[in-house]
Amino acid sequence: MADSGQMAPCDSFGPKLAILAGGGTLPARIASAVRGQGREVFVVAFDGHTDPETVAGLPHLWSRFGAAGTILRRLHDEGVGEVVLAGPVKRPSFTELMPDWRTARFLARVGTRALGDDGLLRAVVREMEEDGFRVVGLQELLKDLLTTPGPVGCLTPDAEAERDIARAVEVAHALGGLDVGQGAVVQQGIVLAVEAIEGTDQMLARCAGLARPGPGGVLVKVKKPRQDRRIDLPTMGVITVEKAAAAGLRGIAVEAGGSLLVDRAAVAEVADRLGLFVVGIETPQ
Amino acid sequence: MADSGQMAPCDSFGPKLAILAGGGTLPARIASAVRGQGREVFVVAFDGHTDPETVAGLPHLWSRFGAAGTILRRLHDEGVGEVVLAGPVKRPSFTELMPDWRTARFLARVGTRALGDDGLLRAVVREMEEDGFRVVGLQELLKDLLTTPGPVGCLTPDAEAERDIARAVEVAHALGGLDVGQGAVVQQGIVLAVEAIEGTDQMLARCAGLARPGPGGVLVKVKKPRQDRRIDLPTMGVITVEKAAAAGLRGIAVEAGGSLLVDRAAVAEVADRLGLFVVGIETPQ
Repeated sequence: MADSGQMAPCDSFGPKLAILAGGGTLPARIASAVRGQGREVFVVAFDGHTDPETVAGLPHLWSRFGAAGTILRRLHDEGVGEVVLAGPVKRPSFTELMPDWRTARFLARVGTRALGDDGLLRAVVREMEEDGFRVVGLQELLKDLLTTPGPVGCLTPDAEAERDIARAVEVAHALGGLDVGQGAVVQQGIVLAVEAIEGTDQMLARCAGLARPGPGGVLVKVKKPRQDRRIDLPTMGVITVEKAAAAGLRGIAVEAGGSLLVDRAAVAEVADRLGLFVVGIETPQ
Repeated sequence: MADSGQMAPCDSFGPKLAILAGGGTLPARIASAVRGQGREVFVVAFDGHTDPETVAGLPHLWSRFGAAGTILRRLHDEGVGEVVLAGPVKRPSFTELMPDWRTARFLARVGTRALGDDGLLRAVVREMEEDGFRVVGLQELLKDLLTTPGPVGCLTPDAEAERDIARAVEVAHALGGLDVGQGAVVQQGIVLAVEAIEGTDQMLARCAGLARPGPGGVLVKVKKPRQDRRIDLPTMGVITVEKAAAAGLRGIAVEAGGSLLVDRAAVAEVADRLGLFVVGIETPQ
């Protein structure tokens, strides 16, 4: 474990944790849960990406993506020992990156090609580790966040849905192997949509107009085959279920052990109410 | 070559040609060009898919997809010898298929799984061949329809666009290998969109909202690695260029020898006017 710094107290539950906060409610949930374990947290919020409510009542820093020098210096000053990336981050534009000296050196080293897809996040993790921070996965902090095998609510996929799931896994794996996306929607054997940079919500939004009559489709999300488990694991929650229902889907399958399920009890309740199955599946690697 | 029937005259330019007409203007262009070669044509138009203008002044039959028995009997009666599939066809729903006896027997044999993606069209080709028709590719009828290597207008891709093209080819090939789609859009190394059942126009429509600042992206369309060249080759024309421009793209690359370029002169003119490159590329197989 990295040196947790000399200025901050470090209790038995682990060193101070910095949360690099993307969008959605996950960063706030993590902060709350980790503090409940008796650990100190420090939130780095990003202009235009992080929900302002995330930082309420918590020590924090608002920053541009490009201000790597400022962020790293502050994390050292705060005595942070571990860092976690939480919540989706839209890939930043070059304008947002507008590098400070540290970021410019970083970009020069990794090359702008690293900005494609997960490349940037992987490079950020390496950079933080070289600075002495330990980067952890969300699932190491909240064990019950990781999807387990089997149904989450009352419903389970029938034989046709199982075939659609298998087809979607095949497609999502192929795309993930190219570091493109994590999701696909299949209905009656037909691939309705494949996820790239637009994200799951937007992919689901277009499926309503593409669906055929008859049994509805399924959404599958799996991690990329070579994905670093500390970065951007596929994540689903209540909103995913609601959007899948609005798109006319019958269910959702997510990778057991390779995806995050936010608020399992609420997901089960909403899935049962809307008549969708939600299931953790074990996939071939 | 199959027996061209006893009722129809068969001139030296080839037997009577049936055009199974999908959407867009391509079926009408083919009909006009083939008649210009002195051949007789017969158009099969599909309710809800074929543009009614396609059949104006031409011998034709309007039909549901599911009426395979009626269609095949009529083609025999008309003395048709060759058949071509022209223009995009949205995958039919089960309702549209509503099989007659012949179609039901066909579906029972190929299985409903064949309805996924190109499976149905491949099965249709096999079925027509077993009935004695020769199924030909559009590019056999109109030699100059096939995309040639090199730029179509005045502009050519720069080094960054070449890298984006290479990335998009890699992604589109992987998807095509799974019989999913033929197209992808990449900007600055980031995969903005991947095509599934929605088609190229809808994929382009969502790219405007996903684009980053800086140099625009590229659209790539390639045939699927195992694609039957008589079915649904990637096709582009003036509308593709206009929609790519509206999406903020810098250019389009299509597979030389493996895609169709409708109205090359008009495509070059529009591409030059809108400032896009359009280029035929040779891709690794």
